[in-house]
Amino acid sequence: MAGKLKGNMLIAQSGGPTVVINQSLVGAIMEAKKHPEIQGIYGALNGIKGVLKESFVNLRKEPVSTLRAVARTPSSALGTVRQKPSNEECEKIFQILMRYDIRYFFYIGGNDSAETTFILNENAKRVNYEFRCFHIPKTIDNDLRENDHTPGYGSAARFVALAIMGDNLDNLALPGVKIDVIMGRHAGFLTAASALARQYQDDGPHLIYLPERAFSLEQFLSDVQTVYSRLGRCVVAVSEGICDADNTPIVVKLLGDDRDSFNNPQLSGTGALGDALARAVKEKTKISRVRADTFGYLQRSFPEVISEVDAKEAREVAEMAVKTAVKADSDGSVAIRRLPGKKYRVTYEIVPLASVAKETRHMPDEFINLQGNDITEKFLDYARPLVGQLPKMARLKKYPVRQLPEKKV
Amino acid sequence: MAGKLKGNMLIAQSGGPTVVINQSLVGAIMEAKKHPEIQGIYGALNGIKGVLKESFVNLRKEPVSTLRAVARTPSSALGTVRQKPSNEECEKIFQILMRYDIRYFFYIGGNDSAETTFILNENAKRVNYEFRCFHIPKTIDNDLRENDHTPGYGSAARFVALAIMGDNLDNLALPGVKIDVIMGRHAGFLTAASALARQYQDDGPHLIYLPERAFSLEQFLSDVQTVYSRLGRCVVAVSEGICDADNTPIVVKLLGDDRDSFNNPQLSGTGALGDALARAVKEKTKISRVRADTFGYLQRSFPEVISEVDAKEAREVAEMAVKTAVKADSDGSVAIRRLPGKKYRVTYEIVPLASVAKETRHMPDEFINLQGNDITEKFLDYARPLVGQLPKMARLKKYPVRQLPEKKV
Repeated sequence: MAGKLKGNMLIAQSGGPTVVINQSLVGAIMEAKKHPEIQGIYGALNGIKGVLKESFVNLRKEPVSTLRAVARTPSSALGTVRQKPSNEECEKIFQILMRYDIRYFFYIGGNDSAETTFILNENAKRVNYEFRCFHIPKTIDNDLRENDHTPGYGSAARFVALAIMGDNLDNLALPGVKIDVIMGRHAGFLTAASALARQYQDDGPHLIYLPERAFSLEQFLSDVQTVYSRLGRCVVAVSEGICDADNTPIVVKLLGDDRDSFNNPQLSGTGALGDALARAVKEKTKISRVRADTFGYLQRSFPEVISEVDAKEAREVAEMAVKTAVKADSDGSVAIRRLPGKKYRVTYEIVPLASVAKETRHMPDEFINLQGNDITEKFLDYARPLVGQLPKMARLKKYPVRQLPEKKV
Repeated sequence: MAGKLKGNMLIAQSGGPTVVINQSLVGAIMEAKKHPEIQGIYGALNGIKGVLKESFVNLRKEPVSTLRAVARTPSSALGTVRQKPSNEECEKIFQILMRYDIRYFFYIGGNDSAETTFILNENAKRVNYEFRCFHIPKTIDNDLRENDHTPGYGSAARFVALAIMGDNLDNLALPGVKIDVIMGRHAGFLTAASALARQYQDDGPHLIYLPERAFSLEQFLSDVQTVYSRLGRCVVAVSEGICDADNTPIVVKLLGDDRDSFNNPQLSGTGALGDALARAVKEKTKISRVRADTFGYLQRSFPEVISEVDAKEAREVAEMAVKTAVKADSDGSVAIRRLPGKKYRVTYEIVPLASVAKETRHMPDEFINLQGNDITEKFLDYARPLVGQLPKMARLKKYPVRQLPEKKV
């Protein structure tokens, strides 16, 4: 059944927005326009929710100038959804896709979206409906298997690096303990990116805690104390998803058992973890100035903080998906692979949908230091090309003025 | 005693850092170098704390390339301090200044710094010590009297506008109620800047709460409910310093009387207010997706988010202070005045130190809407030139695809 397949295309966005997810959307649309076998170019609003409601928009009608501007605009232009459809819903979705003669389907998202795409494809196979469906990777968490890294990560990592750069200077000017809570429920890649902020020997973050290592409050307090004794200040980067050795989220542990709706273990869109850690430092050490910030949704949607490498790759993975779909009867997910060598270069490979679905990827051991409170040089080598050039933070040399003795009266 | 006064110059930074406070520092140094009567150019580390400890650095020795780079670097390069010296300490400081033959003194900061400068100057007058001392304005809160606006505000306002732009798009893609807590203990200028994010009719922030108006939880819940019913979503910008009609901070009110050290009314560096407001919305309405972010210190120290107008003015107020000081025996604070006319233009005036010291400025009534939950067009006209050109957020036109009837089986 290989060869030219005439029919309509449907594309949708899923999961948390990123600042480059619209690059993927626009990349796919622009590529699709080059292939006459793709007839209607439809978008579903709010991911599979829109498919179920048959809320489709005609993307072929969008002016190119609009598409260009949308590509540079953060967040998901088609709207998004946090919903993994049941097998029953997938069956229903598939019926709708057939009714609209959708032959090309592209779903931009994380591992749940890959799984949805996989199930839809199984439905198609069962009834022998020729269906070319692709998952286009996206997640600031950088936790998709098969990928060296994922579109969305580089820009979010750039935001985190810049934020910590500024915050480190703030802390240098007005010393104390500063705790910054960074997104990442299961994977520490984004929190680890805070280390890219370091330019001077004594620059923060001085401590980095990731969900890949069991978090011990005692060890944390002792680590903070040690840094504070040495530098008179301490900047800490901590993943929202840190858990103790029993896998209990630290936010749950610190806020106790009688937590109300305020204290539920929702991780993003709340300052609870940062505040609880700050309180612990205040109570258990003699350090008086302790502050916490939770970077929250700014990490994934801040305009103008874009890694150009990330934007380019987000576009290219989508183009690759469309190109592959029109070439032959096929399905899969586009994975970013890094080529060996000193210069940063990547290639895109089509991998089976199932290999990306379900499980997530974690920080490899070689990226985390032995004590579990920092990252390694290997991680920095890995992450540097993904965020683009970072600005240089300058310091005064501070040549001391010789002190003058008090005059005798 | 007018005319050339030979002696050393001392400059220091005070209060919260900004991304352009080093423009003022470097502007003063570069200007000072042009005047041979200024001999040593010293900086005090951490404001008056450094003066009391005689921790001075020789700024004349700093390479120009370093100074240029420092000017573009956020936070206070000399370090800063949150300390208003007592009259006794001012007396001691003044003795130190005389010992180091400091004839030119410049203090970059808010109204507390203006007051310190005033007291030092009174000491000088009492003993007939010729002393030219100037306060150089700085505050992201924009709350200095005599000023149309203050250096630091434009860049922080730009950060807030960009953050809300992205967050509004995030909320548009994944609807719910989103509460964003913005700095400003007594003045709402920075929170008001969130309104600069609006580009489309339905763009957030949909509600804005400022410390200038008594905050009623009931009204807030009703406002949120109204917006949510209309748009299916709601983005709220709220000042950290909002108080009820009795002037009790809302964070204190919502967290109850049995608050522990965790719940103390510290406003910045904690997510408590946002979390408490989000909890109230969840409990009192039927809206399930409610999130809060507290922008925290990122607002005042984020690299690369700089208003060029702000950077230029921060530099120029400092140059003006030095120029005035060398010209004649004088003292004062440099105030930014806006010239009438359509085109944005400012002039700098020297005003008495006492007129800037102590009290702070608030949002004028004409900038706040009648209901007290939004700003006016007048505020937008006021604020637009201060933040610089903002990027255009693009949206798809979303031409609907006609729904197809289900096929009869």
